[in-house]
Amino acid sequence: MARITMAQGAGGEAMQDLIHDLIIANLAGGQENIEVPLDALDDSAVIDDIVFTTDAHTVKPIFFPGGDIGSLSVAGTVNDVSVMGARPLALSLAMVIEEGLDRDDLSRILRSVGETSRAAGVPVVTGDTKVVEHGALDKIITTTSGIGRRSPYLDDNIDVIREYRPFEKRWMVDSNLAYDDVLIFTGSIGDHGVALLSFREGYEFETKLTSDVACLNSMIQAALKVGGITCMKDATRGGVANTVNEWSSKSGVGIILREDDIPLKAPVKAACGMLGIDPLEIGNEGKAVIGVVPEMAEEVLKALRGTPEGKNAAIVGTASRDIRGVVLETTIGGRRIVEPPIADPVPRIC
Amino acid sequence: MARITMAQGAGGEAMQDLIHDLIIANLAGGQENIEVPLDALDDSAVIDDIVFTTDAHTVKPIFFPGGDIGSLSVAGTVNDVSVMGARPLALSLAMVIEEGLDRDDLSRILRSVGETSRAAGVPVVTGDTKVVEHGALDKIITTTSGIGRRSPYLDDNIDVIREYRPFEKRWMVDSNLAYDDVLIFTGSIGDHGVALLSFREGYEFETKLTSDVACLNSMIQAALKVGGITCMKDATRGGVANTVNEWSSKSGVGIILREDDIPLKAPVKAACGMLGIDPLEIGNEGKAVIGVVPEMAEEVLKALRGTPEGKNAAIVGTASRDIRGVVLETTIGGRRIVEPPIADPVPRIC
Repeated sequence: MARITMAQGAGGEAMQDLIHDLIIANLAGGQENIEVPLDALDDSAVIDDIVFTTDAHTVKPIFFPGGDIGSLSVAGTVNDVSVMGARPLALSLAMVIEEGLDRDDLSRILRSVGETSRAAGVPVVTGDTKVVEHGALDKIITTTSGIGRRSPYLDDNIDVIREYRPFEKRWMVDSNLAYDDVLIFTGSIGDHGVALLSFREGYEFETKLTSDVACLNSMIQAALKVGGITCMKDATRGGVANTVNEWSSKSGVGIILREDDIPLKAPVKAACGMLGIDPLEIGNEGKAVIGVVPEMAEEVLKALRGTPEGKNAAIVGTASRDIRGVVLETTIGGRRIVEPPIADPVPRIC
Repeated sequence: MARITMAQGAGGEAMQDLIHDLIIANLAGGQENIEVPLDALDDSAVIDDIVFTTDAHTVKPIFFPGGDIGSLSVAGTVNDVSVMGARPLALSLAMVIEEGLDRDDLSRILRSVGETSRAAGVPVVTGDTKVVEHGALDKIITTTSGIGRRSPYLDDNIDVIREYRPFEKRWMVDSNLAYDDVLIFTGSIGDHGVALLSFREGYEFETKLTSDVACLNSMIQAALKVGGITCMKDATRGGVANTVNEWSSKSGVGIILREDDIPLKAPVKAACGMLGIDPLEIGNEGKAVIGVVPEMAEEVLKALRGTPEGKNAAIVGTASRDIRGVVLETTIGGRRIVEPPIADPVPRIC
């Protein structure tokens, strides 16, 4: 009797059986008229010009340096809507709570949800709460869904792309990348996963690491306003390695990343070295990968750097016809293939 | 140190502290421009003419007579969108799965989600899946969210109301009931909760009881097409007792129900008698309460009875200026007050 494993929920290759053979096989039928349907497996669906997404959150512990399950829930969903080229309108919040949860902890989580969503300008408008008996759950699970409308800047952004090359898509989906598009990481990678892991396991590194959990909707609107952006994705589970492999595979282009140019904080680098994990595979909660036509890359970078969330943004690579898949040009001058992660190097970080 | 209790998640009075002091207090700010905001505590929110709702499902066991967590997830959300006077467009499905769940069980759940959503014409367009370690969860929790658009029949429905009385609302919200409106139950009550309880506890009653889990969107469109409907609500957690008390309180009208007219299956009646639980307080998953202007009540009833989900619909009561709260005229000729349930008589049925 086959059983579901942790690796199948990790956002990597092992998840594909579950997603394709069970989820897509059973649910994807009859969506021919939906603009971005389930089997596009993008950050959000688009139906009737409404952008729609959902995320379940099982992070452990529920409070961590730089955030908590409340801020994580809001940011994850706001970002999934935003990277489609949308302006998030509203969120839903469903909570399943273990009986016996400290009321003060719940209050703290909800305060965090409220503060994060108000700061992002995306209110929680509907919800559901269930309480299950002690032992049936590990404290609390939250699920946020989000809806959004087309960003007011998206059409102009696409017009700018078309000054340089043909572009037929209406949304910022994973299959939009074309040869020579430039890749930008909007900040340092690996902060969230390493902060969580260090805190959970009690590791001490030279400086205190905090999660990067943040709503990226303002940063993304600022970048779209410049124009020329072809695709965007927030690099959560599976990290940037997963993001760029999805783009490479769905867009049918090779991707070259330059290790030297990738923003990486010293303690994250140290932790990854010590623990033998690849920072490219670690989940982030406040970082996006952005593809942009080369002619507009510097201007988009400048706009990103003008926002608090994108101040450490960097151009890190290019879509290339010379290779297949994803390749990292390493600091020492070599090249290594960046595979999609097989399983999560750090479970329960989101 | 205060702790969260099962009763606080039961949909009844005990849930009010949690909802008002924690959820509304932290999340409801800044929603003045939202047509049906969070603190309306209605079945769905309405923002920018999008109807939006969410439900978490923790039913135990996950397979039960007449349904499973998959069909329950779809129906619950389709119904919450529909009772606002909307046509559901699409669903999201987030699953949190316990490591070790039988793959065949997951497959069966997803098949059920697919069949139920296709039959209702409401596709699952986006999702998320997390797997947590064994013991961190009881098998599987699902959260479905739904979006919908204004029903094509809603404006005409409201025009029919206006032939008989003033009506200023745009949606079928809990505060719409007016004196003399007639109340209809769309079928027998208590089936879901009693079926679940009997199956779970191994009780045997004279006949096999099955859950009533069903998508009500087609039935509701058929009723709206007739016109004159003033409010609708699917009577899930807390049963019809909770529904009519919410209406009474939010609409500021008394409600009289007639016990003799309430559709109740013999085995549900027997089970409730034996177990000392009130069928009015038991959750349903395929039944709605509908308020309608008296002049249109018979026609709406006829339309409901012409649908498979509404074939046992019955007129059961009236909104009245003669009383406050909700009163049941009993079979033996007395009157008893129907209080909002304090806690769930049967936990984990949804």
